[in-house]
Amino acid sequence: MDCTFCKIVKGEIPANFVYQDADLVVFPDIRPKAKVHLLITPKEHIESFLDLKENHTKLLTKIIKVIQQLVKDKKLESSYRVVVNGGVYQEVPHLHLHLLGD
Amino acid sequence: MDCTFCKIVKGEIPANFVYQDADLVVFPDIRPKAKVHLLITPKEHIESFLDLKENHTKLLTKIIKVIQQLVKDKKLESSYRVVVNGGVYQEVPHLHLHLLGD
Repeated sequence: MDCTFCKIVKGEIPANFVYQDADLVVFPDIRPKAKVHLLITPKEHIESFLDLKENHTKLLTKIIKVIQQLVKDKKLESSYRVVVNGGVYQEVPHLHLHLLGD
Repeated sequence: MDCTFCKIVKGEIPANFVYQDADLVVFPDIRPKAKVHLLITPKEHIESFLDLKENHTKLLTKIIKVIQQLVKDKKLESSYRVVVNGGVYQEVPHLHLHLLGD
């Protein structure tokens, strides 16, 4: 599968992982739209938000927890956004959440 | 508690509910920033994204499911965003997710 984010997950394309665990990786957006702009990316190739199923509940819970921790670690509590893009707004067809903050 | 969204949930402030169930309500943003701009709002007064806890897993799963259904119902598959604002970006201190689409 020729998926850029799968390649990043596997280390075939380099990225600076800010966080990683068994289920997800976090790395900076290469075209940042805020002082902090991180992509929270499941290792599993889930194509889009619409492909999240009931069995992703554990993953979702972890994603929320990791983003909450990143907001605290990066001291973004006073101004942050979490964004999921879909359709034409989604540039890479591998689910990822944007954490933006100043 | 003087919370605008709690009042909307209780029907004390009128809003056109696009969807409602035991756990959440969905109504249009009064200042829409896209053709479709809906606020997915838990009935429980959770202040912000940072206040989501492990025991909100069921609620989270439902929120995702409801947004997925709204994307389909409103035919937004080709262009949508899901956004959670925090800090100064969050205008009402009662957790809500924005679904924006064209």
